[in-house]
Amino acid sequence: MRPRLDRVRLRADLEELAQIGRTATGGISRTAYSAADAEARSWYAARCRDAGFELTLDGLGNMFAGPARTGPQQAEVWTGSHLDTVPEGGAFDGAVGALAALECVRAITEAGAELPHAVRAAVFADEEGYFGGRLLGSFGLAHGYQRAELDSITGVRGERLAEVLAGWRWASGDATGTRMPPGRIHAFVELHIEQGPRLEQERTDIGVVTAITGLCGARVEFAGQPGHAGTTPMTGRHDALVGAAAFVSALPDLAAAVSADAVITCGTLQVWPGAANVIPGRVSLTLDFRDPDRERLATLRDRLEAAAMATAAAHGVTAAWHGHPLIDPVPMHDGVRRAIIESADALGLSRMDLPSRAGHDAQNMAHLGPTGMIFVPSRGGRSHAADEYTSFDAIAAGADVLLATLLELAQGDHP
Amino acid sequence: MRPRLDRVRLRADLEELAQIGRTATGGISRTAYSAADAEARSWYAARCRDAGFELTLDGLGNMFAGPARTGPQQAEVWTGSHLDTVPEGGAFDGAVGALAALECVRAITEAGAELPHAVRAAVFADEEGYFGGRLLGSFGLAHGYQRAELDSITGVRGERLAEVLAGWRWASGDATGTRMPPGRIHAFVELHIEQGPRLEQERTDIGVVTAITGLCGARVEFAGQPGHAGTTPMTGRHDALVGAAAFVSALPDLAAAVSADAVITCGTLQVWPGAANVIPGRVSLTLDFRDPDRERLATLRDRLEAAAMATAAAHGVTAAWHGHPLIDPVPMHDGVRRAIIESADALGLSRMDLPSRAGHDAQNMAHLGPTGMIFVPSRGGRSHAADEYTSFDAIAAGADVLLATLLELAQGDHP
Repeated sequence: MRPRLDRVRLRADLEELAQIGRTATGGISRTAYSAADAEARSWYAARCRDAGFELTLDGLGNMFAGPARTGPQQAEVWTGSHLDTVPEGGAFDGAVGALAALECVRAITEAGAELPHAVRAAVFADEEGYFGGRLLGSFGLAHGYQRAELDSITGVRGERLAEVLAGWRWASGDATGTRMPPGRIHAFVELHIEQGPRLEQERTDIGVVTAITGLCGARVEFAGQPGHAGTTPMTGRHDALVGAAAFVSALPDLAAAVSADAVITCGTLQVWPGAANVIPGRVSLTLDFRDPDRERLATLRDRLEAAAMATAAAHGVTAAWHGHPLIDPVPMHDGVRRAIIESADALGLSRMDLPSRAGHDAQNMAHLGPTGMIFVPSRGGRSHAADEYTSFDAIAAGADVLLATLLELAQGDHP
Repeated sequence: MRPRLDRVRLRADLEELAQIGRTATGGISRTAYSAADAEARSWYAARCRDAGFELTLDGLGNMFAGPARTGPQQAEVWTGSHLDTVPEGGAFDGAVGALAALECVRAITEAGAELPHAVRAAVFADEEGYFGGRLLGSFGLAHGYQRAELDSITGVRGERLAEVLAGWRWASGDATGTRMPPGRIHAFVELHIEQGPRLEQERTDIGVVTAITGLCGARVEFAGQPGHAGTTPMTGRHDALVGAAAFVSALPDLAAAVSADAVITCGTLQVWPGAANVIPGRVSLTLDFRDPDRERLATLRDRLEAAAMATAAAHGVTAAWHGHPLIDPVPMHDGVRRAIIESADALGLSRMDLPSRAGHDAQNMAHLGPTGMIFVPSRGGRSHAADEYTSFDAIAAGADVLLATLLELAQGDHP
């Protein structure tokens, strides 16, 4: 019997998950290692129990689900995405890929399909980078973390990752021991919403991802001198916020000077001591910047750092640059792309090649084995917001392609 | 017996209070209606019990201390300041005036001085304006609040004042019933640190305040559209933070264009949804602006509002202006100033006239009766910061002038 998706079950799963972490304003706040994240994992674990699956955890809270392994360990085909969201995010980013993956493994298991390579569903921890690094969990699988590095990672609100993990039920074992042994992954495929407007504009069902954009980030700290808002003349001030604001307001011009594709975002900014009648003495802000070209990305980084220093100096304050590692653009594997294309064509779905301008766990998984990504359309290209939307029919089409691709990859010697 | 201050007791009081709300970085965070504020009030109430004083509260948490009143209620001479601080503030702003006032009333009571007008010590609630309005408690004494107005006041972190007061032990009665009846205050005198550099620069013991600066404030909300930091091109963005940053970076030029005395401070700024990889959809910031001249202050307000609107429009976002009431510059009463001058001269202390560039509860009390202020030097003019400092000798000199001034005012028919 050929495996087939249970669309009713997949739809119910998506609708149930979308209730977890829902806020008063209609968005979903399921940030990594929050109570809502724990609730989503608990719900996911119950779905695994219903399916008779084994659910294993690693030291960062990455989760792996499928039939219990018996006999010799063949390299596996993995699929998955994430359950965490940005604050006030939507119901589709991450959820679509994580739940379609679970449904595919259930369908394959229920059909009793005999495959040379077992198929397993993964949920990656903190894809949205709430804790310092980006794609925290999948980076741990691909590269691992040193203890000192882990100890230095803090959350958006200053929480220390090591402390959070110590009290986190959904992790098991050493957080420095997450790196996957070579040869474990036969192939990896991730289904995701596009988060951009191309598929909708071209009225196309399936995006076959060619490469994932390069990206980088930094935390920049501006330091001045706090003081009384009334008694300190304007000319004697060292106002950290005025310096930081001058830098942030220049970001669009900095991006445009490097390339039309470059994007720079300052998404968080905090002010100390934080009172209406006190001159800010310190500001901490984050930068997210991306470019499809590696060299331009490095240029962007260098110019941003130089601009932070120069702008601070011009305003009588100082700036300190804490850069994240630069993540190279990652091409998707030709064999996996071919399997996606053949699956879409066999299902009679329209398709187009396109790059991903968002970061994904797939870019870390590409270090572990042949990797590909399938995109489905995002209404208006909107994402990381409450009005993110993809129709269920579009999701089901993507899940059908995912299942066919997984079956194809699990049959063969080489993707 | 002529009343005399107990310097050992005053110094011990200052040192004990300085431990309440002390933070790891050496500052003091005793923001209004916080746990640290409650602890300070509890400590102050114990000092009143030790002295055998009656301590009464009003509906906003203003506190009044002195011997229990008996017989006909003559107009009283009041003195006092505040126990709350800005976040990471210092040990002298407010504390000096509040504890010197308590010491003066203790000294007068212990000496058994017979005075036509009783002297009472006051602690004003939320002088630092943590909750929306400035000088919250003393404004309530001078003008009172309507219910709707009270219900609309929120704290720096969005807390609703009405809810906070409902759970606040250090208030009693209706928060809309705090307005003082006319004729209750014979005179008011407040001792305070200068918070500016003049007295130190001129090596002068005592500042005789001529007038308190006019000031105003506002909350400005910038609204754009949140979105994905990777997939939204720079040209399609409506980034609330870039718009707000352009406005904040222009504040020094806006101040300079109005007058050399004008000051503008953006002391708090919050970003939503607040994730490194999400374009900010909303920013809320506070403005504090001051000028010694009423007309220039109004010009400052009008230009700031216009600049917020124009800057927002230029960046594809919107701005909403929520202005506070403009507080006029307040001259100090000639009779009270004369009493301060005579007291300083009799004590052999050097003195100079100077205006206050900071707001004080005295500017509200001036609506209720003849009011004056005494300043003592601030090292380096520093205030609203952990390194705020005034020597105990300088404080004791100021407290001596305060006591002599209170005795003079409490004797006479008219200040």
